This record gives sequence, structure tokens and C-alpha cells, in this order.
Amino acid sequence: MQATSLSEDIESPLIRVQRSFARQGMMQNLGARLVRVESGLCVVSLPYSGKVTQQQGSFHGGAIGALADIAAGYAGLTQAPAGMEVTAVEYKINFLAAFEGGELRATGRVVRAGKRVIVTSSEVMHIGPDGQERACALMQQTLMPVPKIY
Amino acid sequence: MQATSLSEDIESPLIRVQRSFARQGMMQNLGARLVRVESGLCVVSLPYSGKVTQQQGSFHGGAIGALADIAAGYAGLTQAPAGMEVTAVEYKINFLAAFEGGELRATGRVVRAGKRVIVTSSEVMHIGPDGQERACALMQQTLMPVPKIY
Amino acid sequence: MQATSLSEDIESPLIRVQRSFARQGMMQNLGARLVRVESGLCVVSLPYSGKVTQQQGSFHGGAIGALADIAAGYAGLTQAPAGMEVTAVEYKINFLAAFEGGELRATGRVVRAGKRVIVTSSEVMHIGPDGQERACALMQQTLMPVPKIY
Amino acid sequence: MQATSLSEDIESPLIRVQRSFARQGMMQNLGARLVRVESGLCVVSLPYSGKVTQQQGSFHGGAIGALADIAAGYAGLTQAPAGMEVTAVEYKINFLAAFEGGELRATGRVVRAGKRVIVTSSEVMHIGPDGQERACALMQQTLMPVPKIY
Repeated sequence: MQATSLSEDIESPLIRVQRSFARQGMMQNLGARLVRVESGLCVVSLPYSGKVTQQQGSFHGGAIGALADIAAGYAGLTQAPAGMEVTAVEYKINFLAAFEGGELRATGRVVRAGKRVIVTSSEVMHIGPDGQERACALMQQTLMPVPKIY
Repeated sequence: MQATSLSEDIESPLIRVQRSFARQGMMQNLGARLVRVESGLCVVSLPYSGKVTQQQGSFHGGAIGALADIAAGYAGLTQAPAGMEVTAVEYKINFLAAFEGGELRATGRVVRAGKRVIVTSSEVMHIGPDGQERACALMQQTLMPVPKIY
Repeated sequence: MQATSLSEDIESPLIRVQRSFARQGMMQNLGARLVRVESGLCVVSLPYSGKVTQQQGSFHGGAIGALADIAAGYAGLTQAPAGMEVTAVEYKINFLAAFEGGELRATGRVVRAGKRVIVTSSEVMHIGPDGQERACALMQQTLMPVPKIY
Repeated sequence: MQATSLSEDIESPLIRVQRSFARQGMMQNLGARLVRVESGLCVVSLPYSGKVTQQQGSFHGGAIGALADIAAGYAGLTQAPAGMEVTAVEYKINFLAAFEGGELRATGRVVRAGKRVIVTSSEVMHIGPDGQERACALMQQTLMPVPKIY
């Protein structure tokens, strides 16, 4: 019997991102979760825990950067050609304020999707235990489509 | 007469960085280790493990960024005024190549230490199981001295 | 009669920016013009000419960067304390597309105005002879308030 | 038999850069000069004049950025495949100190030359009338090889 498995072409942005996300050891380790995926947009959250702190007990800049990086990267992936992955060429991040407790939420967006380069941005908000949202970081990133090798 | 214990003023760069490093939940979690500290320089290593991978099994960009960030930040800390910490205002990182296995070694250096702003760089090398070194990433970072609050 | 000359305190954002802009030899040289100034926002335009081209006849990246830099810097100036100037600590710019003819228009916006650091962004659009707008570049910038010395 | 003129293949890095540099309207306008070109390296200088100042009389950040950009870009061009140009994808620059008078000298260097992306750095020094050298700015840049179209 001929199996017709799910082809790349009909893969939704959500499924495409979920499959890649599940393979990221570091995101599992830190406790990050996919919140929302649409074409050109991806939201990822990271609850506060002892696994993501710096020396003063706030969220570690490295955790904030990693979260912003993957939200922007997956936003880019939703607009990469079928069968392609994206890889980060570089990014730049500004830290706006430090936070302890609650959770971080990074929203990645495609700024411009070209054939050779995809430019994205990522906005990281902190959501306090009381639901209050405050700006935490802002990233600008360059991605490059590359062949998917797994 | 009661001996006066080690004061901030005579704290060596190594001790100063070690004390802060030990408080970083995220660095403990990822498995990063302090390799070398001098005035204006800090080397941190990160062995490969399932806790720091992306979807293709390579070191995660977020882990590379976090490592580069703390090496550069601690290089800056060695030249901050006594009693002060440093906080990252922003950084920019270029990823030069992807690596699996072995370990990463980030060397942070002070480019210019001003009163209000400290500019640093961080070079991340990959060291293979055979000892071969290859360039992995390059970061440029801006720090700001802030009062130490713990 | 008591003269009430225009004090720093009641200087409008527009007047504040105009006074500084008029002193910029480079902006005069390139032919840049102030288009709009509000609290937290500044728009600057640059018409195409042989003074701002690169080797292929397009707007030079250096001209695009300079324009984005001052739009963002002046957006920041509108929210700096009275009697203070701002100086750029650093910026990062992505070039999205190359353009010849027409004019560039950079819109600078304050992302976050802190006491010690002001973070801004700048979006550069190209406006063709037919009025069509297209994205040209995107910048993220860090400013620092400094005493005004002239 | 007609002698075959200098082909792309045997074009030296210096000639390759000189030909492109001479076509840059903006560099002519600002008064920049090529100082030195080798494979993977390019030095460009910019004497102080009223054409490159900001509101306080110092070199304009936009002029510093433009100079650093072309030094790094031409360093990259020396290692691009024959018949190709390079275009800047993005750059990030830190300003280290402000200077008036004398000249700026930007040294661009290739950090890594890949097929699809070339990463470069640029160090800008100020040289005072007395010959004293001081650090002015530091840039990290991403280039992309593109077909030469003129």
C-alpha cells in the first residue's frame, strides 16, 4: 500500500514550528512553550524558574536573548520556502528592564522575507503574577534559509 | 583584634567574578564553567549536552549568545568600580558556524571602560574532541555599571 | 518691562530639534531636511543626489545609516531632560532594499526613555517619484543623555 | 594580435577596490580616501571638515558609520568571488569617543568569508594633529556577495 504521508507543502505554519520546537533540547530544558504561530508571527513564553536566573535573581540576559531569538526565528520559518529551515546569521538585542517572577513572552515578527535573507524583530514582554505587562527587551535579527537536513 | 575580612577593595578580579558566577542559576543549569579571569578578560566554557541543543542537534544560538554574553559581561565586571555590578544594555552577535559535540569557549574582552558605559567583545570558539579550534561566533556588547544590590 | 525670553523649560520639541539640526554640517551637506517633530518622534528626509550615492548609483548605506541615526537621535532628544543633549552609544541597522532616485524618509521613535539610557528605533522608507513607499532599512539604537555644551 | 586587457581574474585587490571606490559619490563628497588595500583588509581615512560635523562640531556619527561601513565592505570585497560585488546586509557600531579636528582612519577586516555571508569588523581610530591615535568606534558587519551589475 502506498503511504501518502503529510507533505511539506500542506504543512501548516503551526505544525511546521511545533515539529522543530519539540526537537530543541535547550528550549525543553529552560521550560519555554509555544503560545501562538501564524504566517510571519510566533509567540513563545518562558516561566520564571531557578533555571533561567542571573546573579541577582532576575531573568538571565542569556535566557531573554534565547527566547527572543527563537520567537523571531520561528516567525521567519513560517515564511521560508517548503523543505527549508532558517538559521540565524546574527541578532542584536536591547535589554529594557530586569524582572523577577512571572513569565516572559516573546513575539517574533517577519519584517521582510527575501529569497536569501529574512529580517525579523522580536519584542519581549514581562507578564507579572498580577497580569501586568511591561517591556523587557527588543531584538532585530537576520535569518538565512538553509536546506533542512533532518 | 578581630581580623578584617576580605574587603571589596582588595577583591581580586577572579574572586569577584567567581562570587557572581556561582549565583547564576542559568549558568549552573547549562553547565558553563569559569576558565580564566584577569583584569579586562574572562574565559567561560560550555560542554556539549542535550541541555544546549537546537533542532538539528547543534549548540543552540541561545546558548552561544548566553555564553558570549557572560564572558563579555564578566570581563567588564573586572574593570567596574568597587561595589558596582554591570548590567548588559545590549549586544549584537554574529554566528559564524554550527557545531555539535566538544565544547564552546567564549573569551570576553574589554574594548573600552568608561565611567558610564563599558564596551566589550566576545569571541566564541568551538573546541572539537580532537582539540581542533574553530571560530563559532563574535559578539559586541554594551554594559553599564550599576550599584550592587546583594 | 520684564523680558521673558524662551527658556529651555518651555522649548517645544520642534524648536529644540531645529536648533540642533541647523548646526549639523553633515546634514546640510547631504541635503537632509526635518519633516516632523513630536514628543518621542522625529521624521527626516533625504532627497536623492550625487552626494549620497554608492558605486552602483543607489543611496549609500552610509547615508541611509546617517539619516536613520539622526531621526532616532532627535526622537530621543525630545524626551531628554531640559538642558541635556543625547549622544549615540551605538546602533544596529538592517538594509532591506536598494533604491535610486526619489527620496528617503526616516522615522525615529522612542522605544524606552530611561534616566541613563534611551532606546530608539528608526524605520527608513523610500518614496519613489510616483509616491510609492517601500521599506529601505530598520535601525535599533541606544542613546545616552549628556550635558549640552554649546 | 590585440592584447587582452586586465581581466577580473587577475585584478588585484587594490585595483578592484579603487575602481569601486571612485564610483562612490558620497565618499567623494565627504572627502574620504583609500589608504591601504590587501586581501581581507582595507583602510580608509576621512579628514575633518565642515562637511562631516554634528551639532557640537565633532565628527558626525553618520560619517563615522559610513567610513567604518566602507572600510569593512571593501575588506570583504577583496575576498568575494571574481565578478561579484558585496552588499551590506546589516551592521552594528559602538561609538567610543567624540573627536574634533585631525582625521579618522577606519580599518576593515574580514572575520569570516563564507559563500553566502561574509562577516567583517571595522575599527575606527582618530589621529590628532599631533599624530596621537585614539579609539573612536568599533563595528561588526554582515555582507552578502551579489552579482556585479555595472
